[in-house]
Order: sequence, then structure tokens, then C-alpha cells
Amino acid sequence: MIGMLAACLTTFGFLPQVIKVIKTKDTGAISLGMYSMTVLGIGLWLVHGIMIRDFPLIFANAISLLFSSIILIYKIKYR
Amino acid sequence: MIGMLAACLTTFGFLPQVIKVIKTKDTGAISLGMYSMTVLGIGLWLVHGIMIRDFPLIFANAISLLFSSIILIYKIKYR
Repeated sequence: MIGMLAACLTTFGFLPQVIKVIKTKDTGAISLGMYSMTVLGIGLWLVHGIMIRDFPLIFANAISLLFSSIILIYKIKYR
Repeated sequence: MIGMLAACLTTFGFLPQVIKVIKTKDTGAISLGMYSMTVLGIGLWLVHGIMIRDFPLIFANAISLLFSSIILIYKIKYR
């Protein structure tokens, strides 16, 4: 149960940041280094989840990858 | 191997953001909602890791908790 709650919070935790960058186009304080590493890391978690056929890991990281990639794209576009 | 690399990237991915907020004190574009949810979620991952006695999960989330908490504290202090 705690693991599920943790997964939901860390997965959907990106959503407020996605909404904020889409609304404000302000990405000045956001670190490009962080989101480059985070998107790559989450991508590898997704590959790892597919390799071990672990559905929660695949599901959580597919959503996190979507959200964190949006933030990364906005950071690159609106530096 | 991919899992280890993914864990390192998502754990140490916070570090560039920690350095940036400490240097600039600029947290305007950073979402308070994201870091509140993320710190809580990582905290629960840590509890989960302790409960199942999984050292990599404990180690990765202890570091992530430290880094993400610093960002959250800076966000609250320098809105």
C-alpha cells in the first residue's frame, strides 16, 4: 500500500510543474541538467520495467516520462 | 545494470537543481506543488524500502529525499 501511494505521488508529482510551465512559460529557475538526467533516468526505468515485465514500474514510469519530457521540452524552448 | 543506471540518474538528477537554487536563490518557476508531492512520495518510498529491507531502494531514496527537501525548503524560503 505504501509503495503504491509513493509511486502515485512521485509519478503525479510532476503534474503541478507541467501545468505551471505551460501556463507561465517561465522555466528560468528550472535546471536543464536535472531534467536531462531525470528524463534519461526515467526512460531507463521504463526499459528496466519492460525487461522484467513489471507492470506497475512500466505504468508509473511511462506517465513520469511523459510529464518530465514536457517540462524538458518547455525548458529547452523557453530558456 | 539498466536499473542501477536508472536509479543513479533519477537520484542524482536532483543535484543540478539543488546547486542552481543555492546559487541563484531563484525558485520562481519551480512548482511548490511538485516538490511537496515529490518529497512526500520519496519519503514513502524510503519507508517502503525499510519495511521490505531493500538496501538500494533505501539508499537511492535517502539521497533523493535529502536533495528534494533542500529544493522544497529553498522554494518555501525564496518564493
